[in-house]
Amino acid sequence: MDFRELVKVRRAVRNFEDRVVPMSLVKDIITDSCEAPSGSNRQPWSFIVITNKNVMKSISDESKKNILKEMEHNPSTSLSGYKAILKDPGFNVFYNAPCLVYIAGPKEVRSVAVDCALAASYFMLSAADRGLGTCWVDLGSAITDPALRTEIGLPEDHVIVGTIILGYPVEIPEKPPRNEPNILKIVP
Amino acid sequence: MDFRELVKVRRAVRNFEDRVVPMSLVKDIITDSCEAPSGSNRQPWSFIVITNKNVMKSISDESKKNILKEMEHNPSTSLSGYKAILKDPGFNVFYNAPCLVYIAGPKEVRSVAVDCALAASYFMLSAADRGLGTCWVDLGSAITDPALRTEIGLPEDHVIVGTIILGYPVEIPEKPPRNEPNILKIVP
Repeated sequence: MDFRELVKVRRAVRNFEDRVVPMSLVKDIITDSCEAPSGSNRQPWSFIVITNKNVMKSISDESKKNILKEMEHNPSTSLSGYKAILKDPGFNVFYNAPCLVYIAGPKEVRSVAVDCALAASYFMLSAADRGLGTCWVDLGSAITDPALRTEIGLPEDHVIVGTIILGYPVEIPEKPPRNEPNILKIVP
Repeated sequence: MDFRELVKVRRAVRNFEDRVVPMSLVKDIITDSCEAPSGSNRQPWSFIVITNKNVMKSISDESKKNILKEMEHNPSTSLSGYKAILKDPGFNVFYNAPCLVYIAGPKEVRSVAVDCALAASYFMLSAADRGLGTCWVDLGSAITDPALRTEIGLPEDHVIVGTIILGYPVEIPEKPPRNEPNILKIVP
C-alpha cells in the first residue's frame, strides 16, 4: 500500500472480528518491525505474542489493579481520566482482541524506549498494510506480579515499551483530529 | 511508495548533496509526522527546524562537549565507543546535512519519549517516501547551554527526543544486518 494511503488507514482499532490471526502473519509483522532503525543499530527489541484470552484477561486485571494503586499515590497522573473505567470489573483493557504483542527490551539500554517505539511504529504500519488493525494499549503494560511475568516469558531485566493489540478490524475508525503542527522555531 | 519498498529505502543517510531542502517540503514531512499515534491522542510533539550551518556547528560542539563530560562521570556508558570521534574537533555530528529537525515535547508528559519517537518514525518514512534521506543523530541532542537553547527556541520544560538530519542523499547506503526477530514466548 502507498505510504500516504497507509498513514490514513493506520487507525487505533479496538473492535475486532472473531477471527484468529495466523501466527505466520504475526511473525511476518514482527520481522517488518525489526527493520526499524535503532541507536547504534543495537536492535534491543524482543517480542511476546499472546493469543490466550484467559492470560490476556489476567494481565488486564493485574494491570488495572496496579494503575489504580499508582493513582492512589499520584492522583494527578495523566492516567487519572481512566479511573472510572479501570474500576469496572467488566472492562478488559484489550477489548475483544484475538492477539496481544508486547515489545520489550533491557532496561539498561539507554535508548530502549525510543528504539522499541520505532519498532512499534513499524509494527502498526506493517499490520495496517496487511489489512489488520492495531491499538497501542498502555493500560495493559503495568505487570508487576512475578508469576505472571514468568508465565508470559518477560525477563526480570526487561521493560515493556509497546503493548499492541492486533486483529482483523470490524471497521476502520475515523481519524481523531490532529492539531496544526507546532513548529517552535525555524533557524535559517 | 509501497510500504514494503519504503522500508527498504529508509536507511540512515549521512552523506548529502549540497542542495537546500525547500522549507515547504520540510513542513509537509512534519505534517505527516503528526499523523503518528500518541498516548490519549495528546500529540505532545513540537518541532524545531535548523538550516543555519553555523548554528548546527555550535550545537555539534556543545553536544560533543556535554557527552564527553558525561563519559567522565560514567565511563561505562553505551556511548563510550564514540569517545575518540567526539574528541576530534573536526567531527561534526551532523555531517554535511543541510537541515536538522528536533522533535521535542514537555518533560512532564509521561509518554513523551515514545510519542515523539513515533512521530520521528513517521518523519523518517515520509522523508524517504519523498526521495530524501534522514539519520537520527542522538549525539546531537545534549544541549544544556541556556543561550543556545534560547537561540533555537527550545523551551526550558521540553526534552529533545528526536534529532534528525535531513537532505538529499548522495546514495542510499546498504542495509546494516538485522538479527533474527527475538520472540521470547508465544502464549497460545
